Amino acid sequence: MTPTRPPLTTLPRDLLSAADYERLAPDFILPATWAWLAGGSGDERCLRESRAAFQRWRIVNRVLQDLAGGHTRVAVTGRTLAHPFLLAPVAAQKILHPEGEVAAARGAAATDGVLVLSTLSSLPLEDVAAAAPEALRWFQLYFQPQREVTLDLLRRAEAAGYAALVVTLDAPVQPASRRALAAGFVMPPEGRPGSLARYAPPPRRELGADDSVVFQGLMAEAPTWADLEWLLAQTVLPVLVKGVAHPDDVRRLRALGVAGFVVSAHGGRALDELPAPLDLLPAVRAAAGADALVLLDGGVRSGADAFKALALGANAVVVGRPAAQALAVAGALGVAHLLRCLREELEVVMALAGCATLADITRDALWRDRAGEDTSC
Amino acid sequence: MTPTRPPLTTLPRDLLSAADYERLAPDFILPATWAWLAGGSGDERCLRESRAAFQRWRIVNRVLQDLAGGHTRVAVTGRTLAHPFLLAPVAAQKILHPEGEVAAARGAAATDGVLVLSTLSSLPLEDVAAAAPEALRWFQLYFQPQREVTLDLLRRAEAAGYAALVVTLDAPVQPASRRALAAGFVMPPEGRPGSLARYAPPPRRELGADDSVVFQGLMAEAPTWADLEWLLAQTVLPVLVKGVAHPDDVRRLRALGVAGFVVSAHGGRALDELPAPLDLLPAVRAAAGADALVLLDGGVRSGADAFKALALGANAVVVGRPAAQALAVAGALGVAHLLRCLREELEVVMALAGCATLADITRDALWRDRAGEDTSC
Amino acid sequence: MTPTRPPLTTLPRDLLSAADYERLAPDFILPATWAWLAGGSGDERCLRESRAAFQRWRIVNRVLQDLAGGHTRVAVTGRTLAHPFLLAPVAAQKILHPEGEVAAARGAAATDGVLVLSTLSSLPLEDVAAAAPEALRWFQLYFQPQREVTLDLLRRAEAAGYAALVVTLDAPVQPASRRALAAGFVMPPEGRPGSLARYAPPPRRELGADDSVVFQGLMAEAPTWADLEWLLAQTVLPVLVKGVAHPDDVRRLRALGVAGFVVSAHGGRALDELPAPLDLLPAVRAAAGADALVLLDGGVRSGADAFKALALGANAVVVGRPAAQALAVAGALGVAHLLRCLREELEVVMALAGCATLADITRDALWRDRAGEDTSC
Amino acid sequence: MTPTRPPLTTLPRDLLSAADYERLAPDFILPATWAWLAGGSGDERCLRESRAAFQRWRIVNRVLQDLAGGHTRVAVTGRTLAHPFLLAPVAAQKILHPEGEVAAARGAAATDGVLVLSTLSSLPLEDVAAAAPEALRWFQLYFQPQREVTLDLLRRAEAAGYAALVVTLDAPVQPASRRALAAGFVMPPEGRPGSLARYAPPPRRELGADDSVVFQGLMAEAPTWADLEWLLAQTVLPVLVKGVAHPDDVRRLRALGVAGFVVSAHGGRALDELPAPLDLLPAVRAAAGADALVLLDGGVRSGADAFKALALGANAVVVGRPAAQALAVAGALGVAHLLRCLREELEVVMALAGCATLADITRDALWRDRAGEDTSC
Repeated sequence: MTPTRPPLTTLPRDLLSAADYERLAPDFILPATWAWLAGGSGDERCLRESRAAFQRWRIVNRVLQDLAGGHTRVAVTGRTLAHPFLLAPVAAQKILHPEGEVAAARGAAATDGVLVLSTLSSLPLEDVAAAAPEALRWFQLYFQPQREVTLDLLRRAEAAGYAALVVTLDAPVQPASRRALAAGFVMPPEGRPGSLARYAPPPRRELGADDSVVFQGLMAEAPTWADLEWLLAQTVLPVLVKGVAHPDDVRRLRALGVAGFVVSAHGGRALDELPAPLDLLPAVRAAAGADALVLLDGGVRSGADAFKALALGANAVVVGRPAAQALAVAGALGVAHLLRCLREELEVVMALAGCATLADITRDALWRDRAGEDTSC
Repeated sequence: MTPTRPPLTTLPRDLLSAADYERLAPDFILPATWAWLAGGSGDERCLRESRAAFQRWRIVNRVLQDLAGGHTRVAVTGRTLAHPFLLAPVAAQKILHPEGEVAAARGAAATDGVLVLSTLSSLPLEDVAAAAPEALRWFQLYFQPQREVTLDLLRRAEAAGYAALVVTLDAPVQPASRRALAAGFVMPPEGRPGSLARYAPPPRRELGADDSVVFQGLMAEAPTWADLEWLLAQTVLPVLVKGVAHPDDVRRLRALGVAGFVVSAHGGRALDELPAPLDLLPAVRAAAGADALVLLDGGVRSGADAFKALALGANAVVVGRPAAQALAVAGALGVAHLLRCLREELEVVMALAGCATLADITRDALWRDRAGEDTSC
Repeated sequence: MTPTRPPLTTLPRDLLSAADYERLAPDFILPATWAWLAGGSGDERCLRESRAAFQRWRIVNRVLQDLAGGHTRVAVTGRTLAHPFLLAPVAAQKILHPEGEVAAARGAAATDGVLVLSTLSSLPLEDVAAAAPEALRWFQLYFQPQREVTLDLLRRAEAAGYAALVVTLDAPVQPASRRALAAGFVMPPEGRPGSLARYAPPPRRELGADDSVVFQGLMAEAPTWADLEWLLAQTVLPVLVKGVAHPDDVRRLRALGVAGFVVSAHGGRALDELPAPLDLLPAVRAAAGADALVLLDGGVRSGADAFKALALGANAVVVGRPAAQALAVAGALGVAHLLRCLREELEVVMALAGCATLADITRDALWRDRAGEDTSC
Repeated sequence: MTPTRPPLTTLPRDLLSAADYERLAPDFILPATWAWLAGGSGDERCLRESRAAFQRWRIVNRVLQDLAGGHTRVAVTGRTLAHPFLLAPVAAQKILHPEGEVAAARGAAATDGVLVLSTLSSLPLEDVAAAAPEALRWFQLYFQPQREVTLDLLRRAEAAGYAALVVTLDAPVQPASRRALAAGFVMPPEGRPGSLARYAPPPRRELGADDSVVFQGLMAEAPTWADLEWLLAQTVLPVLVKGVAHPDDVRRLRALGVAGFVVSAHGGRALDELPAPLDLLPAVRAAAGADALVLLDGGVRSGADAFKALALGANAVVVGRPAAQALAVAGALGVAHLLRCLREELEVVMALAGCATLADITRDALWRDRAGEDTSC
C-alpha cells in the first residue's frame, strides 16, 4: 500500500487556494480513499457540470466605490456569521485525518466557519460538539428506517447544542461510484458512523417474487411528506432541507415551515443526470421567496465562485471536497487556512465589483458568457 | 482469423450495464462482424448524434414521494407489458450467436420483453415464434419487390401468432458502412434470411442509358402510399411504421389507421444526415396525437435514456446494439440480464425523480442542458 | 523533389467520393503545388468554416413518395443541364495535369457538367473551347487594369462560344496563403495564364510618399460600379457575378441586369474573415429574388452538401478543389467520375428525402442542428 | 540564465505581423520576464477570452466601391491621427529593451502612433517626452495614496507636454500572475518606476485584528468618486478613464466631464473573471454616447481585429503585448514596423469591406458567427 505523508503542521508558502489543496491532497490520502472522496456516480457528468456551471458567468467590475467599511458578514438563522462559507457534511472524516470531525470543527471555529456535521460522521456528534461554539455547529440528519432512531438522533443533536438541522432528502437510492469500486474502496473500521453505533440495524425487509428492489425495497423505507411533517413537529431548531431541486417541492416545503434550502447534487454522488446546483439556484430562490435561507452546495472552489452563487440567489455557500482535502493535508490548520483563503478571495472580488457587503452582490454584477451568441445588439 | 470466446454461461459480477456488454462484446464477435454491427453509414455522425442527443437533457429530482406501489408497466396495443424495453429488429443474429433469434426471443421472454423479429432474421419466423409467448413477439416487415411475397410474409407472421407488425419505411436506398467495407465484412451463410429462403429473387430490372440507378432503378421498387394502404387493408394486426420523421408523413399515416410509430434513424445505417431520433421525438408525438403508440429507437443505453425518451413523448423504447451485444456475450442469459439491468436502472431514476409509474414521467422532469445559454433570467 | 505518380487511366474500386480523391491527390501533386491548391488565406478559418457550415444542417427523410420519374435536371440561363454541379474556375490547371483545362473540359462534358474557365487558365480560352459543347462552357472574367484588355477578353470569349460570363468581384486585394509561402510555392512556367499571354503588362503606378499601397495603389485599379455598368453594356451574354455577399450589393447588381450570383468566399483565398458561403446563401437568395440564378461555391464535397445548398436557396453548386484533385488523380476520367459520384449521391439523398426533382428540395427538408438548444418545446 | 538575442537592427522578410513578433519575442526576452509579460491573473481565462471574442465576428465584403481616396485618419481629442492604433501603457519597458520607453516612443512617432506612457514607466516621463511629438504622447495616471503625489505627477505630465491623460480605475487590488510567480519573476532594478523615484513611499497603514486586508487595507487607499472629481478640477487636459465596464459607471463618469473611455480588462491582469473587452464594447459605447471617445484595449492583434472593434463602437484601439514584443525584438524599428503592418492590414480589410474611411466601418459590416444557431430563417 502506498504510504501517505503525515498531515502538515506548518503551511508552505505556495499553498494559497483550494486548487492547491486539491493538488497536494493525494499525497496525504490512500489511493482507494482518494477515489472514494474524489469520485462521483455514473459517468461523473454531474460532478463536472457542477464545476462548469460557474464558468458560464463572468463578473463586471465597478469603479471608485468607497469600500473602506466593507465586510462579509451574513445573517443566518438568527445569528450573524463572519463570512458565508460553511463546511459540508462529509461522512467518515477519520479516514482522512486521525482527529476526524473534531479537527474539522476546530479549524472551522478558528475562522468563524460553520461545520455541518454528517449523520455518518466517524466521531459521535457529542464528541464533535465540544470542538466548536454552538453557533458554528449544525447537524445533518438522514431519516433512519425507524422513527424512534431518527427522533433519538434529533434529541441528541438538540442536547449537544447544535444550532440548526440540515435534513438530506435527495438520496433515498444511491448509485455506486465506479471510481471507488475500481479502486477497491471499502470503508475502513475507523470510518464507521460513530453517532449510529448504539442503534441496532433495522429488520431486513423481505421482497415478493414480483416486487421491485427499488420500489418495494429501498423506496419503501424512504421518508415521505408525512415523515417530514412529523419531524418538523418535533423540534424548534431551524430546519433546512438539502437536495431539493424542483420549484413545486420548494414551495410545498416552504409552506410546511422549512427555514431554508441547500441546493445540492450531493456532490455528484446521487443521480448523475442531475443538473448543476448553480444552474438550479435561481429557480430555487424564486420559489423559496426572499426570506428563505438558500445555500449553494456543489462546485465552490474559490471566492469568485461564492460571489457568483450569491449573485444568483444564495445567502451562503457550502464547501465539501476542498475542506476534506484541507483536513487531510493539514488538519484543523488546513481547514482554518482554507476558509481564510476563500474569504479573502471573496473580499478581493467584492472590492473589484464595488460591493461593500454581501447584500450588494446582485445579478447585475454578472455577465453571461454566451459563446456564439450576440449580446450586443 | 482472431478466435472468439464462446458465449458465457454465467455472468461475472462486474457485468452491470449496457456499457459493460459493449466493452466485452468484441471478444465474442469476429472483427468483421463487429464492424458490421457497430458501424453506421457515411461519417457515422447520425450514429454519434443519436447518443449525444440524450446528453442535452438532465433530470430534476423530486423528494418525499411515496413510491412503495411503484411499477414500470405499460399498455401497448391492447396488452400490458411489464416494462417499456423492446428488442429492435436486428438482422442475421446467427452470426452473433449459434442460436440466433431463438436465444434472443428466450432471453426477452424471460424478462417480459418484446422481441421485434426482423424480416431478415437468420432463423425462419416460424422457428422463432415457438421461443416466446405471443404477446412478446412482433414482426418487422420490409416491403418486398413483389406484392405476393409481401403478402405471404404477412400471412405467415399472422399464422405464427405475431402480435403486431412493424413496417420499416426509411431505407429504400441504403448507403454502405465504410467500417464494414474496410473490415471486409461479407454476410456469412448462416446469416442469410431464413424467412425469405423459399422465395425466388425478383426479376432483374433493366435500365435505359439515361435512366438513373436511383430513381428508375432502386426507387421504382420502393413502396408507395398505395402500397401501404393496400397492406393496411390486408390485416387486422396493429401496424406500426418505423423510420418516419416528418410531421406531415406522421399525420397522413395516422389518418390511414397506422397504430403507432417507431422513431428511428435505422441505427445510423440509413442516411447519415438524419437528425437524432430523440431530437425528432417531440414533433412526432405532437403530430401523432396522444393516443398513438410512439416508440423511440436509437441511442438508448440506460434506464436514464429511457426515462428521457418517455419524458419527451415515447411510450416505450427499442434497444438494438446493446441487445445484439448481450446476445453475443451470453446468449439468452445475456439478453435477459441486460433487460433486467435496464429496468432496474429505470426504476432507480424514477424513484429519484419521484415517479411511481411511467405516466408520471413528463417533460417537467427534464432540464435542458444549455451550455452558454442563460436559463435563469 | 518528391516524385509524383502519373495520372491514373483506370479507377480503383475504392474510389467512390470526393473524399477519396482528396485522400489520393497528394500522391499525384508536387508538395508545393498541393500547398497552393489546398491552402487558404490567413488562419484558414474561412476555409474550415465553409465546410463546417454544412454540418449545421441535417436532412429529414420522407416516406412512400413515388419517385420513379425522378431526375436532377435544372434550367440555367435558358438551357437545361442534366445536374446542378459546375466546375469552379481554378487557375493554372496545367500544373495539376499535363492536359490542364482541356482535360477538365472533356471530363465535365462527358457527364453533362459545365466548366467555368478561369481568366487565369494555363491554356488559352480558344484551345479549351474545342473540348466541350457550347452549353457546357462558361468564362470567368477578371477585370483587367486596362479596359481595352478586358473588352478584348470578352470579345474572344464570345467568339469562342462561351455561353455565360462569371465576373469575379471579391478579390481586388488578395492576401497570401501562408501554407503556399511556407512550402515555397512559385507558379511554374506551365501555369502562366495562357489567355493573357498576348497582352503587355499595365504601366506601373507610382505612389506618393503619403499614398497608401492599398487605397492609392491596388484599389485605384480595382473595378467600380461604373466599370461593371460599362461591361454589361458590351455583351448580350448572361452575366453572373461572383463573390457578392451583402444584400444591398445583390439588389443593386440585380437592378443593373445581372443574371445571377455565385455565392463564394473565393475558396477561402480572399479575406479570411469572410463568413461561410452557405451561411450567406439564404440572405443572397432573398435579396436576389426568386428569378435570379444563385450558385453556391464553397465547401461542397458531396451530394448531401448540394442538397443542403439547394434547400437553402441555390439553383446549382460549384465544385472547386474536388475537381482539381480529380483532375490530378485521373485527368478527364477523374473529373467525369467525380461528377457522376456527386450526382448519384444527390439522387440517393433526394430519394430518401422524397424529392423527385430539384424543385422539391426546400427549406422544409432541413433540420437545424442546435447543440444545446431546445427545439422541442 | 538563458542568454537572449540582442535586438535586431534589420527586419527579416518573414516578419509580417503581430503573430510573427509574438513567435520571435521569446528569443529576445529572459524567460521570467516573458512569463511576466505574457501571463495573466488566475487561470488566464480573461486573457484567452479577450482574444476569442474577436473570433465571434466575421466580416462581410462589399464590391465595386471606389476607394481611391481612402485613408485611416481619425480625430481624437481635437487632433487628427493618421491611424487608429495607440500603444498601451506597459510598465517597466527597460526590462524589454535597453532604451525602454524612449525606443517605444520613437517607434510610435515614426509611424504617427500615440504612445500612452505608464505611470510605472522605467524612464521618467520627462525623458520620454523628448522622443515623441506632443500630439503623439499621452500619460497614463494611477492615483497615488497621497493626493499631493498624484497632483505632482499631473503637473509634471502637463509641463512635459503630454496631450491627454488616461486614468486607470480598474485595478485597486491586483491578483498575482501564477505564470510569473512560477517563473520566479522579480522586477529587476532597471524596471523600477522612474517617474516615481523622487517620492517617499506612503506611510504603512496599521490594521486592527478584525480588519480585512482588502476592505480596511488596500481599498482604503483606492480612489473614490470624490478623488476623481477633484482630479478633473485640476487639469484642462482631456481625461480618459481606463477599465470601466458597467454602463452606470460610464454614464456617471461622462456626466462628470470625462472625455473618453478605454474599454480594457487590464490585459487579463486584473480580475480573471472579467468579460472580454470586445464583448463589453457595444454597451460602453451606448452608455457613453456618440460624442465620447471610446478606445478598445485587449486582444487586438491584427487589422481585422481593429476593424471589428471599430465596427462595434470604438474610435481607435490600444495595442499592448504586440508592441512590447516588437520593442524587445527590434526596438524602435520593431515598434514602427508593427504599427505599419497593423495599418496596412486594416487598409486591406477596409478595401475588401468597401470602406474608404473609418467612419464607413459600421456594425452592418459584421456577421455574427453563431455556431448552432439558425441565422437564415
